[in-house]
Amino acid sequence: MRDANYPWFILVPDRANITEIYQLSADEQCMLVHESSLLAEALMVGFSPDKLNIAAIGNVVPQLHLHHIVRYQHDPIWPAPVWGAVPAMEYQGDEILRTANKLLVQLPASFSVIEL
Amino acid sequence: MRDANYPWFILVPDRANITEIYQLSADEQCMLVHESSLLAEALMVGFSPDKLNIAAIGNVVPQLHLHHIVRYQHDPIWPAPVWGAVPAMEYQGDEILRTANKLLVQLPASFSVIEL
Repeated sequence: MRDANYPWFILVPDRANITEIYQLSADEQCMLVHESSLLAEALMVGFSPDKLNIAAIGNVVPQLHLHHIVRYQHDPIWPAPVWGAVPAMEYQGDEILRTANKLLVQLPASFSVIEL
Repeated sequence: MRDANYPWFILVPDRANITEIYQLSADEQCMLVHESSLLAEALMVGFSPDKLNIAAIGNVVPQLHLHHIVRYQHDPIWPAPVWGAVPAMEYQGDEILRTANKLLVQLPASFSVIEL
């Protein structure tokens, strides 16, 4: 996510026309939580957060996607959730690439990263 | 949750000292998403939402719990996420019990409801 306030990544499962997790098959649901946990563990290693925030919201973009947000006790709004808190902060220079790379090197090759 | 703005339920898996989903075993992760989906389907039947919002935040109470929020396009803050939006609204009379019962009748007996 283009918000330098916190490292923020969105997991988008490759399944069309799904808006809610329960619409996935039981096997796909397990795969989703497994992939989310791979991402979560990569975030722990790459960023050493105090807490992860993981959410399926989708009120604006309904296609299923899971927010994964790295939170620190020293971040701009701790302990509030990120939504409705402070405006997104622009990344400067190559900071967004460095942030994505810190994640990417921790992930299996089955993950691909798309910049939003 | 004591917020009459939206039907809002919290799933608390019966596992001590867990703060992040990835800390559960692979089997427990599948169980968690399965139970979350049972709750989600019960919410769909009981409340006919336009969207469900499901989130693991835990910045204040770190023990693992999953928010499940019923959202309508006509609710007070749609499409914003509920956090940081409007103050919680008190339930009136037995409305909180009626809301809980609307959910409870849709859930398997393995779920128990605790009022927070």
